[in-house]
Amino acid sequence: MHQQNSQKSPEEGNSASNNHSGNSESEFKRVHASMQSAISLNKTEVLDDVLNNFSEGYFTLSHENRRKLLLVLARDYDLNRSQVRELIKQYLGLELPDDKAQVSGSKEEGLFSSFYRIEWNLRHAIQPVYEVLFDRLNTHPGGLRFLSILRANILDILAEENIASLRALDSYLKEKLSTWLSPAALELHQITWDDPASLLEKIVAYEAVHPISNLLDLKRRLGIGRRCFGYLHPAIPGEPLIFIEVALMKNVAHTIQEVLWDSPPIPESEATSALFYSISSTQPGLAGINLGKFLIKRVVKLVKREMPHISTFATLSPIPGFMTWLLSKLASQTVLAEGDMSQPVAEGSGSTFYENILKPDEEEALMSLPKDIATGKNGMEVMLNLLTSTTYKWIHSPEISSALKSPLMRLCARYLLKEKKRGKALDSVANFHLQNGAMVERINWMADLSEKGLSQSGGIMVNYVYSLDNIEEYAHSYFSNGVIQASSDLHHHVEPHSDK
Amino acid sequence: MHQQNSQKSPEEGNSASNNHSGNSESEFKRVHASMQSAISLNKTEVLDDVLNNFSEGYFTLSHENRRKLLLVLARDYDLNRSQVRELIKQYLGLELPDDKAQVSGSKEEGLFSSFYRIEWNLRHAIQPVYEVLFDRLNTHPGGLRFLSILRANILDILAEENIASLRALDSYLKEKLSTWLSPAALELHQITWDDPASLLEKIVAYEAVHPISNLLDLKRRLGIGRRCFGYLHPAIPGEPLIFIEVALMKNVAHTIQEVLWDSPPIPESEATSALFYSISSTQPGLAGINLGKFLIKRVVKLVKREMPHISTFATLSPIPGFMTWLLSKLASQTVLAEGDMSQPVAEGSGSTFYENILKPDEEEALMSLPKDIATGKNGMEVMLNLLTSTTYKWIHSPEISSALKSPLMRLCARYLLKEKKRGKALDSVANFHLQNGAMVERINWMADLSEKGLSQSGGIMVNYVYSLDNIEEYAHSYFSNGVIQASSDLHHHVEPHSDK
Repeated sequence: MHQQNSQKSPEEGNSASNNHSGNSESEFKRVHASMQSAISLNKTEVLDDVLNNFSEGYFTLSHENRRKLLLVLARDYDLNRSQVRELIKQYLGLELPDDKAQVSGSKEEGLFSSFYRIEWNLRHAIQPVYEVLFDRLNTHPGGLRFLSILRANILDILAEENIASLRALDSYLKEKLSTWLSPAALELHQITWDDPASLLEKIVAYEAVHPISNLLDLKRRLGIGRRCFGYLHPAIPGEPLIFIEVALMKNVAHTIQEVLWDSPPIPESEATSALFYSISSTQPGLAGINLGKFLIKRVVKLVKREMPHISTFATLSPIPGFMTWLLSKLASQTVLAEGDMSQPVAEGSGSTFYENILKPDEEEALMSLPKDIATGKNGMEVMLNLLTSTTYKWIHSPEISSALKSPLMRLCARYLLKEKKRGKALDSVANFHLQNGAMVERINWMADLSEKGLSQSGGIMVNYVYSLDNIEEYAHSYFSNGVIQASSDLHHHVEPHSDK
Repeated sequence: MHQQNSQKSPEEGNSASNNHSGNSESEFKRVHASMQSAISLNKTEVLDDVLNNFSEGYFTLSHENRRKLLLVLARDYDLNRSQVRELIKQYLGLELPDDKAQVSGSKEEGLFSSFYRIEWNLRHAIQPVYEVLFDRLNTHPGGLRFLSILRANILDILAEENIASLRALDSYLKEKLSTWLSPAALELHQITWDDPASLLEKIVAYEAVHPISNLLDLKRRLGIGRRCFGYLHPAIPGEPLIFIEVALMKNVAHTIQEVLWDSPPIPESEATSALFYSISSTQPGLAGINLGKFLIKRVVKLVKREMPHISTFATLSPIPGFMTWLLSKLASQTVLAEGDMSQPVAEGSGSTFYENILKPDEEEALMSLPKDIATGKNGMEVMLNLLTSTTYKWIHSPEISSALKSPLMRLCARYLLKEKKRGKALDSVANFHLQNGAMVERINWMADLSEKGLSQSGGIMVNYVYSLDNIEEYAHSYFSNGVIQASSDLHHHVEPHSDK
């Protein structure tokens, strides 16, 4: 469960380049000229036509021409630096009154007037020239969506090469977009089978966590025992920016199969749990803008009001960073182990020291597996080999999977609870929910046996629980002190008691 | 027809001061402390509670305490000027690469990195500290509405005294509000009798041009042959920010009485004209933010689509500045006339010179009125006395009104077509429609005999016409060259031909 993006609409990709249109110098020049007009014409001259010309022209450009145009925008329309310098000199020429306390009388207030004036001017001069284009597009019908596509293209380019001016453009646009997409301007909409096909098609296209296979699958996700909510922005009609899927259940599901294939669903009146099993965002151009923050809180309130008998709000989420972390740990330890085994083991220290991350009984269980299916000089190497096999034969063998279960579950709990980066959970989905005030409730073995579930999360899924009384408190202690709230069950995995 | 504001909700006024609560120093300190928290706490600590505390606390304050608090906000939370100076010094220390053209290769791009970094920092440092409060409130449920009330209070204070810091605060907040209220985020909603009473009540309360007297009156304005459209913002639900009232008619109405009292209305299928007879904005705190700009254009399109047989789109508008302009002109000329009549008359020159603004035949007609009802040494003084009489007896006397008609209509046309301020029409309603691309079509005698219509517009109303083919062109030539498009009828009033 995470904000993910999947397919791109034709406009966002570089389909134009495939058929060799939009690739010529003359087309580039035409769109460049329309961009120039959209920026430099005065306010009432910038008719809808000018902005339409520019955005329509942009869509016809090839990937290469778009890149060229965005670089022109980033470089030639940034700042009037000589104007900024001029204002700065004026500003430095002003003398600050000694103490603000002394001048709070309205009589001496005038002293500040020149400050206010030059600061106002400086505040505007320090804005890049491309601000005008962004502002104008934002107030233009369809413009906000166009800006989001523009940013998606910028991010694509930045993923290939790091260009300082383009990165500055991106930061600026991102900041603008997050102002405009304030949660207060977003409308929570329950998506149902009665919604227009054009909207439902977006749900199918953008569901990135658990892909929707066909119309029947979609209908189930909008039918009895299910809910789907999306955030809509008035300027991007008919296309939720982010949506969340909910299953109403008797108990918090352990596996995604229960959620996706439990036909028929239980009567809604018998449900006591609402399970958030998928969040997808639809706009790659809005990456890094936290649209989900208020979404969960608002959906919880809405469901609670409609169905007061629902008492548990939980997620069933992937742990998308788990395998990456674990495999790199296993690989580096395997290399270290080969290096010099005679050195004393520095247990519990950083990853540059050799650390057997397996317990003795886990090591033993792994090493006693039949050698034809589990090869390796030690437990960690056996584990590495089993987990990196693309056939995932371990999930079909009770013998292997039982040997893997204990170390995988334990290390998964450790990954979720202990592994951090700058004081935040290393796992992006964990960080998302902890930020929102959730706690880590339970990890579930063999919970997602899809290709993606196995390769990213080792088949494990986690339930985060939103406990209404503690959301604010948990969000706060996570933010200020990095405290990750977790159930005793989770803690047991990490520090097993003697009876385990 | 103009964006006007009328009643204030209890929250906006200073009702708290009337019952002596909210007036104490301790209450002020409490709200000050909650404002401080709302600004200085870090992001996730600023829970909804903190912002709610502040806004609820603010509403309990007396007028005087609100004033005190707003001044604290304006003065103590403006800029960290020493930080700005520090950044400026770093910035001046950077050396500009000689020529941008030379460094557009991605290799030399790095040279600009320090510019981008310091400019980014400066851009943020130059923002006043109170930006944080505004941004946070904007993303908080109910916050946008609260900000609009805050600004209404600021404007009230500024109307009494001009305080530089508060004016700077106001400019900043105004700019923020106009970003957030982008037309793209506003939804056009047709207001009907099926809307919730809580919304309809707002229409009654805020209709400022032609007050709605009772429920029946309101029902008529939403019924057959009438339309009402409002702009709604998702963050201020159930309360249109601005609304426009439309009458469907056979011909463009001459008087407001025809519109308000023509029962029964004609069948809609027979209508050929859509008459905009009222625009009211509901938020005094959004003064100066042109919400109406796109409203008329969008309503025209909507009506045209629904009823293609409508071919004329016109307004019936007041001329709210006419009497103020005329009376001050008459008064100053009367004074000048008393001063030194022997001086040669500098005709057509500025108002500091004596100018008889009446034509000889108008002068004669006014001077030949019976002396018991029309006193004065000359025509202008007679006119001044008649028009400033609060009983408006002139409208009931055919003799007087026929003597007034010719000069009033002529001077009204002159006022609309010739009197400007900084290249724009002096009359605010005229300026509003001309900006939107309308033309001045016709002025109507005895068109609004309400107290307000008489005292502001001398009973005259004007039809502005939106001609679909020319809207963009007219808006453009008005904006760039101050050209006021008018019918030949209007021009005749100003420069009468021999046959008139």
